[in-house]
Amino acid sequence: MRLAQRLDNVETSAIRELFKLLGKPGIISFAGGFPDAALFDVDGIREAVLAALEHEPGAALQYGATEGFDPLREQLAAFMAAKGVTGVAPADLIVTTGSQQALDLLGKTLISPGDTVIVEAPTFLATIQCFRLYGAQLLTVPVDGQGADVEVLQRLIAEHRPKFIYLIPTFGNPSGAMMSEARRRRVLELAVRTRTLVVEDDPYGDLYFDAPPPPSLLALSAQVPGSRECLVHCGSLSKVLSPGLRIGWMVAPPRLLAKATMCKQFSDAHTSTFAQATAAQYLAAGRMPATLARVRAIYAQRAQAMVQALRHELGAAIEFVPPRGGLFVWARLSGAGGACADGAELARRAIDHGVAFVPGAPFFARDPDRATLRLSFATVDEDRIREGVRRLARALRG
Amino acid sequence: MRLAQRLDNVETSAIRELFKLLGKPGIISFAGGFPDAALFDVDGIREAVLAALEHEPGAALQYGATEGFDPLREQLAAFMAAKGVTGVAPADLIVTTGSQQALDLLGKTLISPGDTVIVEAPTFLATIQCFRLYGAQLLTVPVDGQGADVEVLQRLIAEHRPKFIYLIPTFGNPSGAMMSEARRRRVLELAVRTRTLVVEDDPYGDLYFDAPPPPSLLALSAQVPGSRECLVHCGSLSKVLSPGLRIGWMVAPPRLLAKATMCKQFSDAHTSTFAQATAAQYLAAGRMPATLARVRAIYAQRAQAMVQALRHELGAAIEFVPPRGGLFVWARLSGAGGACADGAELARRAIDHGVAFVPGAPFFARDPDRATLRLSFATVDEDRIREGVRRLARALRG
Repeated sequence: MRLAQRLDNVETSAIRELFKLLGKPGIISFAGGFPDAALFDVDGIREAVLAALEHEPGAALQYGATEGFDPLREQLAAFMAAKGVTGVAPADLIVTTGSQQALDLLGKTLISPGDTVIVEAPTFLATIQCFRLYGAQLLTVPVDGQGADVEVLQRLIAEHRPKFIYLIPTFGNPSGAMMSEARRRRVLELAVRTRTLVVEDDPYGDLYFDAPPPPSLLALSAQVPGSRECLVHCGSLSKVLSPGLRIGWMVAPPRLLAKATMCKQFSDAHTSTFAQATAAQYLAAGRMPATLARVRAIYAQRAQAMVQALRHELGAAIEFVPPRGGLFVWARLSGAGGACADGAELARRAIDHGVAFVPGAPFFARDPDRATLRLSFATVDEDRIREGVRRLARALRG
Repeated sequence: MRLAQRLDNVETSAIRELFKLLGKPGIISFAGGFPDAALFDVDGIREAVLAALEHEPGAALQYGATEGFDPLREQLAAFMAAKGVTGVAPADLIVTTGSQQALDLLGKTLISPGDTVIVEAPTFLATIQCFRLYGAQLLTVPVDGQGADVEVLQRLIAEHRPKFIYLIPTFGNPSGAMMSEARRRRVLELAVRTRTLVVEDDPYGDLYFDAPPPPSLLALSAQVPGSRECLVHCGSLSKVLSPGLRIGWMVAPPRLLAKATMCKQFSDAHTSTFAQATAAQYLAAGRMPATLARVRAIYAQRAQAMVQALRHELGAAIEFVPPRGGLFVWARLSGAGGACADGAELARRAIDHGVAFVPGAPFFARDPDRATLRLSFATVDEDRIREGVRRLARALRG
């Protein structure tokens, strides 16, 4: 069987191999990229699905419009408006099967083989693979504590005229970094000036710990003339409400949105109306603010526990910027005192010591920094986080 | 904004334009491709989702394996086994976001630009567009009352060495045709002899009216040595249980299945676990046989009403093979007595007379037969079917 040529561009993730080891009894896993299922508002979702089946069983179970279930589009527009987004009507967004599908539709709609796309270094692994499947050549812009480096971005745009730029400006996976408001403005201005499309992926922005993050690029675009026409925004209910619903959405300029909708028609016809009607009822019921407050508080405690334990147990052997939201600590092994400075090597040793995490190298589309690692605190309670970090320290020492 | 080159291969469906007219008050629509929402087992689905949230809320709401939710894969394997499929284990199938996604994954995994794919004439419209988006050159094999013409298929395979053959052997959309068992065997033998991959799309096979159809290609493959390795089978719960769940599945040889799974990972990560857990509970509860019996009986009555009304009202002006299952009558205007013989023209006139249907031409990947039309009886009760056909007769006359 001859496979399509596009498959030559990707490989099965090295991380998948690691995940097979996670079933080992007693292991403490910082490896997942998942929210904590114990925090899901099961009662709220039950009420929502019962309401959907009671009030609109036909709509909830029948085929629906490719663009999405209108009551959900209205709720999502209102959800964004409550976060400071102005001028985005329900018709300006389509519902996607998780925000992963938004990435896939962008790839399908925009990327011809050989096109250049700029992503952050590091960035979300499935983004790298998704865009490569459509034949993208990926260039990378480095990320520091303030987000993507806009100077480098500007130079790359000038040199390579990319098809688009893909950013996760707020608590991104894996970097956890929060792009400053100043840089956000500069990104939008740069997009307008160079007529470059910017894709903002924002699944984690709601998960801040103390103060809210700066406005999303979408919210900020109201203040930068012309930038809305250069901007795609991808949202998701997966990190707060439930990944199992597979509800994401995409805001894009009208022509692009129409073409992405056409592509979606031939990808999966539409996102589950059963899940969409449930999500619409959930949002309409007004339970989201309380759910958000609860998960923010718990993830904040877990993040703090991990940050303190890492400093206490690993000290100078590890460097990181404490996250201000999201699910991850992104760290770098300094090699201080001759300790291990290879994330993959440490990940292997860590399994033997009963703790798992994901090495950082695969998150780089090119020029991997092999000293990096991603630690998720999301699904582990504070005592286990401290124990896990102790095991990590033992693994590092030998 | 420069769109991807692959978009040059497709256009927005002409049918979509027609559908905009369907909101006209009082119109009787034979245009849909939908099952009747009034027949959905809402009580059963409510029980199923409550059971899923009660017994496995974490699994139903959390991220899941790309391959699918294991309890559902087990139920689907058992569902097929009950229809005579042997030797298909849960691990031999993946769950897809509707069977539309199975087509998309086959395109992504197999089709390089310029590859030849053979489809039936006529075939499912979204299949044509889906494969073209991946750059397929489509060739067509004609369909008669016994299904696809295997002589023509054999010649096309020899001449063009296609990437694969796509067939809807049982009550296909739009032809409604049922491929004979003899031809099914010949298709499998031909696949083995020429080492050609055959894709069987089977969303309608459960919807037979009187006697069950011949075994699916998948069931029959147990009797044709080597054919399982040349066969992909796509199933769906959309036509009987609920399209809104977006639950389909794909059985394929292991290497192809693994690559399609990788592609799915970057398409939508996985199909809604909320919907999968609900479907698994529904199937496990044993409600499917009674649901099937009920919808078969009702669609059979509606099909009979339409067939009789067409014969009575349109007589020699229309030719068709009465369907033995599915949702459609596929017909051809004979032009007898100088009557309209153009499906698109008649569709326009029909709207003015208060009845809608879909002209057949768009269902041909090439060389459209413009005299054809697709009439769905699925969502209209018998009295309205008779009234709709009377309107159609009036439209035909003037």
